[in-house]
Amino acid sequence: MDYYGKYFSRLIEQFGKLPGIGYKSARRLAFHVISMPEAEVEEFARAIMEAKKNTGYCKECFTITDEEICPICASTKREPTTIMVVEETKDLVAYEKTGRYQGLYHVLGGVISPMLGIGPGDIRTKELFTRLRQREVQEIILATGSTVEGEATAIYLSKLLKPIGVKVTRIANGVPVGGDLEYVDEMTLTRALEGRTEI
Amino acid sequence: MDYYGKYFSRLIEQFGKLPGIGYKSARRLAFHVISMPEAEVEEFARAIMEAKKNTGYCKECFTITDEEICPICASTKREPTTIMVVEETKDLVAYEKTGRYQGLYHVLGGVISPMLGIGPGDIRTKELFTRLRQREVQEIILATGSTVEGEATAIYLSKLLKPIGVKVTRIANGVPVGGDLEYVDEMTLTRALEGRTEI
Repeated sequence: MDYYGKYFSRLIEQFGKLPGIGYKSARRLAFHVISMPEAEVEEFARAIMEAKKNTGYCKECFTITDEEICPICASTKREPTTIMVVEETKDLVAYEKTGRYQGLYHVLGGVISPMLGIGPGDIRTKELFTRLRQREVQEIILATGSTVEGEATAIYLSKLLKPIGVKVTRIANGVPVGGDLEYVDEMTLTRALEGRTEI
Repeated sequence: MDYYGKYFSRLIEQFGKLPGIGYKSARRLAFHVISMPEAEVEEFARAIMEAKKNTGYCKECFTITDEEICPICASTKREPTTIMVVEETKDLVAYEKTGRYQGLYHVLGGVISPMLGIGPGDIRTKELFTRLRQREVQEIILATGSTVEGEATAIYLSKLLKPIGVKVTRIANGVPVGGDLEYVDEMTLTRALEGRTEI
């Protein structure tokens, strides 16, 4: 039996389709929506439609943007001979927030994961090589995550990139700043030791 | 700086306004929305608008419904002289799923909570007494939760209801069916002992 009425039940169902939202969360969200003022509900529904209609990927670096070419790729202030390869737009954002990187990016849109059936053809590797043919690039910084998949993707790319003659680097592993050694895992400690620099 | 473009950022912001959704969850949901087929996104946005427009509260028992009078109140098969008082529609649903209750309901829409500044006037107590004046009721079952607020609300209501001459009952506390005594708290064990019945 439909205890909440057709429209409310349909909204629970729709929320429940979103990742990480179970039935109880979906019901809580639906309950919240019907208690919101009508103008806010309209704004929410419009935001969903407009984001879908107007958001796409930068034709150069494939970050999420609502323009043909994202503001970073379009900027004349960035250093165009360095490209940092990241998994997702959120990783690009993380580096942008540091304010310390002036080059361009390339957003793969995922990592190679044989477990999930994601091969090199499912992420934007081909597009990266197209960019390298079209413009002069001196350094590629591989900044995929330090997960098994992120590492494998970095190794895969480095093997293809090195023969081209471009400098290929990988972001460092080590102890997080402010991190107490006691709580850092052994693999990270080992990498931090291997990557030690003279002071 | 707006790293995701105006429309995507606005969607993250909108999702972030929902209860229990932090910035990272909001971003994950927004990312999911733009990767959904356009028809599904439209269906989602429509479900939000339609639920808001068409969902209201039953004029009798105040459960969530898209009709004037909910199917339970409108049914001729229910026992109209018994009313179970619950906090929210989801509690009504929980009892409906047992299939063992044939009376009507009254949904308070909350519980008395001095901590949160919710008094008797903020939940549907007045509406309950209006119903009692309009129709013959023999028993009121207080089925608010076994929380401090749920108990306080039940005590408050019982004090007002008893002088009317209606039978007032409270659902039992006890050991959950299938529950191992070892894991049941002391208060519940005490209530289970007090509420023991002859077999």
